[in-house]
Amino acid sequence: MALIVQKFGGTSVADLDRIRNVANKVKKEIELGNKVAVVVSAMSGVTDQLVGWVKQISPLNSQAALEEYDTVVSSGEQVTSGLLALTLNEMGIPARSWLGWQIPLISDDAHSKARIGEIKSKNILESINSGVVAVMAGFQGVDANGRISTLGRGGSDTSAVALAASINADRCDIYTDVDGIYTCDPRIVTKARKLDKITYEEILEMASQGAKVLQTRSVEMAMNHRVRVQVLSSFNDKPGTLLVDEEEIVERRRVTGIAYSRDEARITLTEVANIPGVSAAIFAPLADANINVDMIVQNVTEGGKETDVTFTVPRGDLANAIALVEKTRDQIRYKTLHCDKTVAKISVIGVGMRSHVGIAKEMFETLAAKGINILVISTSEIKISVLIAEEYMELALRALHTTYGLDYE
Amino acid sequence: MALIVQKFGGTSVADLDRIRNVANKVKKEIELGNKVAVVVSAMSGVTDQLVGWVKQISPLNSQAALEEYDTVVSSGEQVTSGLLALTLNEMGIPARSWLGWQIPLISDDAHSKARIGEIKSKNILESINSGVVAVMAGFQGVDANGRISTLGRGGSDTSAVALAASINADRCDIYTDVDGIYTCDPRIVTKARKLDKITYEEILEMASQGAKVLQTRSVEMAMNHRVRVQVLSSFNDKPGTLLVDEEEIVERRRVTGIAYSRDEARITLTEVANIPGVSAAIFAPLADANINVDMIVQNVTEGGKETDVTFTVPRGDLANAIALVEKTRDQIRYKTLHCDKTVAKISVIGVGMRSHVGIAKEMFETLAAKGINILVISTSEIKISVLIAEEYMELALRALHTTYGLDYE
Repeated sequence: MALIVQKFGGTSVADLDRIRNVANKVKKEIELGNKVAVVVSAMSGVTDQLVGWVKQISPLNSQAALEEYDTVVSSGEQVTSGLLALTLNEMGIPARSWLGWQIPLISDDAHSKARIGEIKSKNILESINSGVVAVMAGFQGVDANGRISTLGRGGSDTSAVALAASINADRCDIYTDVDGIYTCDPRIVTKARKLDKITYEEILEMASQGAKVLQTRSVEMAMNHRVRVQVLSSFNDKPGTLLVDEEEIVERRRVTGIAYSRDEARITLTEVANIPGVSAAIFAPLADANINVDMIVQNVTEGGKETDVTFTVPRGDLANAIALVEKTRDQIRYKTLHCDKTVAKISVIGVGMRSHVGIAKEMFETLAAKGINILVISTSEIKISVLIAEEYMELALRALHTTYGLDYE
Repeated sequence: MALIVQKFGGTSVADLDRIRNVANKVKKEIELGNKVAVVVSAMSGVTDQLVGWVKQISPLNSQAALEEYDTVVSSGEQVTSGLLALTLNEMGIPARSWLGWQIPLISDDAHSKARIGEIKSKNILESINSGVVAVMAGFQGVDANGRISTLGRGGSDTSAVALAASINADRCDIYTDVDGIYTCDPRIVTKARKLDKITYEEILEMASQGAKVLQTRSVEMAMNHRVRVQVLSSFNDKPGTLLVDEEEIVERRRVTGIAYSRDEARITLTEVANIPGVSAAIFAPLADANINVDMIVQNVTEGGKETDVTFTVPRGDLANAIALVEKTRDQIRYKTLHCDKTVAKISVIGVGMRSHVGIAKEMFETLAAKGINILVISTSEIKISVLIAEEYMELALRALHTTYGLDYE
């Protein structure tokens, strides 16, 4: 007998029929002899409506306002947890809803994006062990003052993983509207394959590189607490993708997946003074303005007195970033500032890179063979990212997918 | 400086504009130097939608199901309490929402129709006294096990009165979509007048006789705790109707108001055996079936061996009532069973009856003058009710309204 946490997102509980479908998924686990805790999101669209009302009233720039935001917005999960528990009871499966404050799931008081402190799981675990399915409202907790908190958008994934860690569940199944994690976006690369397994490190790189299936925070939590997470579809019965430790990946593939992001803009400063403190002068004001600088490349020019600096920022922040850089011109004495919004970032990801050589070389050769120019390169231990012209993005993804042997046969 | 509880129903908080209107009503009290606690219902229609979903899933015939019902249905008030607190904060009026479990308002575990046990008002009162408007979600509480409870439809009135009693408020203003309590339904009697004052006893008779402005339970609670309740409109600034003790009614009017009910059906059994135990034999099965028998009249016929019994039941229960009575035929040996659904009950109500004589006589004479036949009569200390043919109802109401001097000049 195993203890399973199942998490269902907004599209999976969008109406009463789909809630019945979810109840049937729970029933299957029960019939396998397992004990089950379920975590649910709000019906799809409900949270958006509630957030919309709140934002019409307030710019949410005070603690008092954010506390009310959480009171309002958390109601969506309250409804679905009650409806699912009711549906299970009607099917003859004892179940009860658990709101964040009832467990309690204690968070800090950073309302609207609170972080989980502790789940006091004694009562919920006793209830589960007595044969009652626990249906936990996702996305919500309670702060030390007894005010409802929410964990930020997508926070139900984090709720589920945190619960699984807290009750030492054997598996945490995250049901979504996709079948699992793919080697690449199947809408672009038709030969993309669903992965049976992926490591936590890889999915973190995939997620931060633009493949948004799981909330990053939930993966970090799963990694830290070694929770076995499975991503699978609530609309079919196929197995999904299991998040595992690196040791569990038997097949030592070189590359696991390819991610992309169109949300990039490039800024290049030429002939910047090559003196200490220049990097700080450029990047400190951007950091202060909460502009997330991603790739950074610096080339020393002939003679070594000047350097070219290229970096990327989110497209929406480009105008703001340029204005901040221009303010530092007296200090860093660059000659020209170029910018480009029509770029895309492509990342090849895989823990296999640690033991396989030549992956970067293959990447550069593949892109060269298609006549694609590389603008910026950055690497980490399990990832190689390149910035290219956006118009070549799909072509590059398909070519690389073939190069690394990822194509579906 | 006074401590005021203001309660706003579903139509008063139906959208963000109306919530702003409510916030302005709160602001006015604040500007008068008063301290304020507000109790809100759910946006109109929301509770119906939530109840509709729940009833599609479950017949609600178990404690577990009713607990989930309350979890789901209470979410509507959670939303409006948060939205109103947020709106007040944006207007520069410090405010916070209080959910039932946060106060806590402790109820029994009769979920979906729970009764309030105790309001632990220490924290909410401290917050109010520190200058923060308390916005309490109406209709909800928490049971001893920490499960959310609801107080039954219209329970927000009861929440408000209970809060007012608990914090010893100077007044409890119930804002509705009517201006106050009228001498009679103004849709039927155009000369009906708004009453400035009415006693608790009178409004209890008015409410149970079909004038549904305040939930009966809330009036009983106001009477028991001597809470000064005012019923007034949230859509204008006119004073409403104040519920008071009998001593506060200066003008000793004979009749305060006239109520009616179309929800009646009459059953008459002729020549019932006039022996001990017959009444119990008729009415016990009806009580067991939760059929509320209202008026009962028994006339002993000539010789005294048989008796005619007439009584009224809610129209919706008539078929069921007849079936139950027919089962007892062997025991009570009635000759015929007549029934009539086209009847209406009219009640003349007033604490003045205690000191004025002749009110019943005037009623019978007025009806006789209009050719209206009285089918059944029942009386209490401050009320005379008659059952008449439904088609005469409006005529009877207008005639009686004139007879007792209630017409608007």
